[in-house]
Amino acid sequence: MNNVLAVNAGSSSLKFQLIHMPEEEVVAKGVVERIGLTDSIFTIEAKGEKDKTVGDIPNHGIAVKKLLDALISKDVVKSFDEIHAVGHRVVHGGEYFSDSVLITDDVIAKIEETSELAPLHNPANLTGIRAFKEILPNVPMVAVFDTAFHQTMPESSYLYSLPYEYYKKYGIRKYGFHGTSHKYVTERAAEILDVPIENLRLISCHIGNGASITAVQGGKSIDTSMGFTPLAGVTMGTRSGDVDPALIPYIMEKTGKTADEVINVLNKESGMLALSGFSSDLRDIEAQADTNPRAELALNVFAERIHKYIGSYAAKMSGVDAIIFTAGVGENSPTVREKILNGLEFMGVYWDPRRNDVRGKEHLINYPHSPVKVLVIPTNEEVMIARDTIRLAQA
Amino acid sequence: MNNVLAVNAGSSSLKFQLIHMPEEEVVAKGVVERIGLTDSIFTIEAKGEKDKTVGDIPNHGIAVKKLLDALISKDVVKSFDEIHAVGHRVVHGGEYFSDSVLITDDVIAKIEETSELAPLHNPANLTGIRAFKEILPNVPMVAVFDTAFHQTMPESSYLYSLPYEYYKKYGIRKYGFHGTSHKYVTERAAEILDVPIENLRLISCHIGNGASITAVQGGKSIDTSMGFTPLAGVTMGTRSGDVDPALIPYIMEKTGKTADEVINVLNKESGMLALSGFSSDLRDIEAQADTNPRAELALNVFAERIHKYIGSYAAKMSGVDAIIFTAGVGENSPTVREKILNGLEFMGVYWDPRRNDVRGKEHLINYPHSPVKVLVIPTNEEVMIARDTIRLAQA
Repeated sequence: MNNVLAVNAGSSSLKFQLIHMPEEEVVAKGVVERIGLTDSIFTIEAKGEKDKTVGDIPNHGIAVKKLLDALISKDVVKSFDEIHAVGHRVVHGGEYFSDSVLITDDVIAKIEETSELAPLHNPANLTGIRAFKEILPNVPMVAVFDTAFHQTMPESSYLYSLPYEYYKKYGIRKYGFHGTSHKYVTERAAEILDVPIENLRLISCHIGNGASITAVQGGKSIDTSMGFTPLAGVTMGTRSGDVDPALIPYIMEKTGKTADEVINVLNKESGMLALSGFSSDLRDIEAQADTNPRAELALNVFAERIHKYIGSYAAKMSGVDAIIFTAGVGENSPTVREKILNGLEFMGVYWDPRRNDVRGKEHLINYPHSPVKVLVIPTNEEVMIARDTIRLAQA
Repeated sequence: MNNVLAVNAGSSSLKFQLIHMPEEEVVAKGVVERIGLTDSIFTIEAKGEKDKTVGDIPNHGIAVKKLLDALISKDVVKSFDEIHAVGHRVVHGGEYFSDSVLITDDVIAKIEETSELAPLHNPANLTGIRAFKEILPNVPMVAVFDTAFHQTMPESSYLYSLPYEYYKKYGIRKYGFHGTSHKYVTERAAEILDVPIENLRLISCHIGNGASITAVQGGKSIDTSMGFTPLAGVTMGTRSGDVDPALIPYIMEKTGKTADEVINVLNKESGMLALSGFSSDLRDIEAQADTNPRAELALNVFAERIHKYIGSYAAKMSGVDAIIFTAGVGENSPTVREKILNGLEFMGVYWDPRRNDVRGKEHLINYPHSPVKVLVIPTNEEVMIARDTIRLAQA
């Protein structure tokens, strides 16, 4: 067994990578977009070639068929039999899944049941699972959850200070997200530092359009900034992060919106977009930071919220051994990293501005004498999916 | 001028202290409770005697009259003329007031206007102001705001990552509370440490039934845990503190409550009460911590949230020179202080368990060699009110 297809199905999209294991070599990758709409777009990259086709792809089943056919026509595989396992990203595993799992009917039922907690994502992920199951009925499939890594959090971290029956009856607790990414970069950090992960206290900053900060002690997530949903925590591209909960009825009263509409504003019209007044994209905002006070403000708020989480998680672990930056902004913005890291000397963080001038590759950016190490590590959720898929499909 | 009456008027209560200035000596104090209800209770303590009277006190005007008459009949003052100034605690000053202020008609109008931000408190405070104004029309009166001390926060601290017009149109921002207390204990800390406050980075932990943590740099509040309302921040007696805002519509849907009703649950049925399942009073919870796992959990969550804020505010100020504990729990619970302080050595906090065994009095509880000092300082909002009242009434 060596070809694993890592799949991320959205409501109208399907991303995939075919990864040769255990070499972890990506032999093909691509995306189907606008599924179920007209002018669907299918992009595939293999053997140094990139192809793009526009045409109607009415559903995920057709999308799967198309991508598998393309793998054959491009001679990446000779037949469907050479797809040895499929790994699916699933956003929410609730409290059922603290690890990836071989997909069975029972697992599908539980993902369905958990859809209430992730109404936009889990049903889309399931559509992908079902499409592959129909076309490749005998291929083992594995579900890899965004929430699983955080299931190690202690009760004192995941419980809100709310009536206990809200947790028992309605599943209201902190779940956390980006788990696959936090797991990947923290494991990689231990390798780079050449220290057993059991001995490390790590703070992982996954900073993209969505952003979450996680405290990882001995290889286990013990706290994370996102909550019941991915709205909580730090300021993000369009998400507010934490706000005084009493604001919800106040905004409702002032604007005439329903509670759901207010949360929609907090998810889609807030964050960097609201602070800057013109963009949710950090690159746009950085470009104007010297000339536009609102851009500078947005950048400062963004960095400061993360800076404060680092202090809070260092306190939680009685200190920190390494801080990791990953995802779009974390990997590619020396400016944001600088703003986040400035003034952490009191807790042993000494970083080197010259080393920080790096984008999109693994790099240590602390001074050699710094007690706390600082790493830039590009995330790789697909390879984590492939690893878990191989591990469970072969078991 | 030397007799200042410091007043805190609630919707059905009126607390007062008559303070002799500049000696800051309390010559009488008391409270009128159940105003407007039957069996109102009037308690006064002066000259070593404590009296309690039960009888109907239909409104704040009668309450004021009663307490002034009692001051004369107890020979604390000879006539109303010996009340030289009255200082009123007012909860919310909005963005109008960054300091205490001599009360004029314009000030009253602004406090009224700000009532929307504190609908339970400002109207009650105004009732007190009006009652005194009628009975002592020629005595200068000063308003001392819970929010004023936090008006020095920079934009990056007080702005939520929400649409900017919410701030401009509706005044939605972080205001912060307990300002008078944070100001008092941080000024006192500078005196005790014998360091100019301009040179200090302080974290003030006001921990009572309500609780807020404030970062004070150079004598100015630069960030605080409470927000638009006193619901935000850490876990409190019955308040949840921060939760994922997306929970509001979820709880509404699950329980059939309105948004206001959900916020009411978050304010009154959450926090330590919800976590422990039996009490909002820390003393009850501490008493069961060894035998009841829910009590232990409540205690741990409570302390941990504050512990994390200390880390986050230390990060914000690039380090901290002293941590201060005040208010009911902060002054009187060695256990909670211990849980909060444990594991902060990485940032220079070395505290002495023996020194920590102190209740309700000023005390340094760090080891002498600790770079970060830790102080217990009983708060005294009344004396702050009296100081500001004298300063402004004499100007």
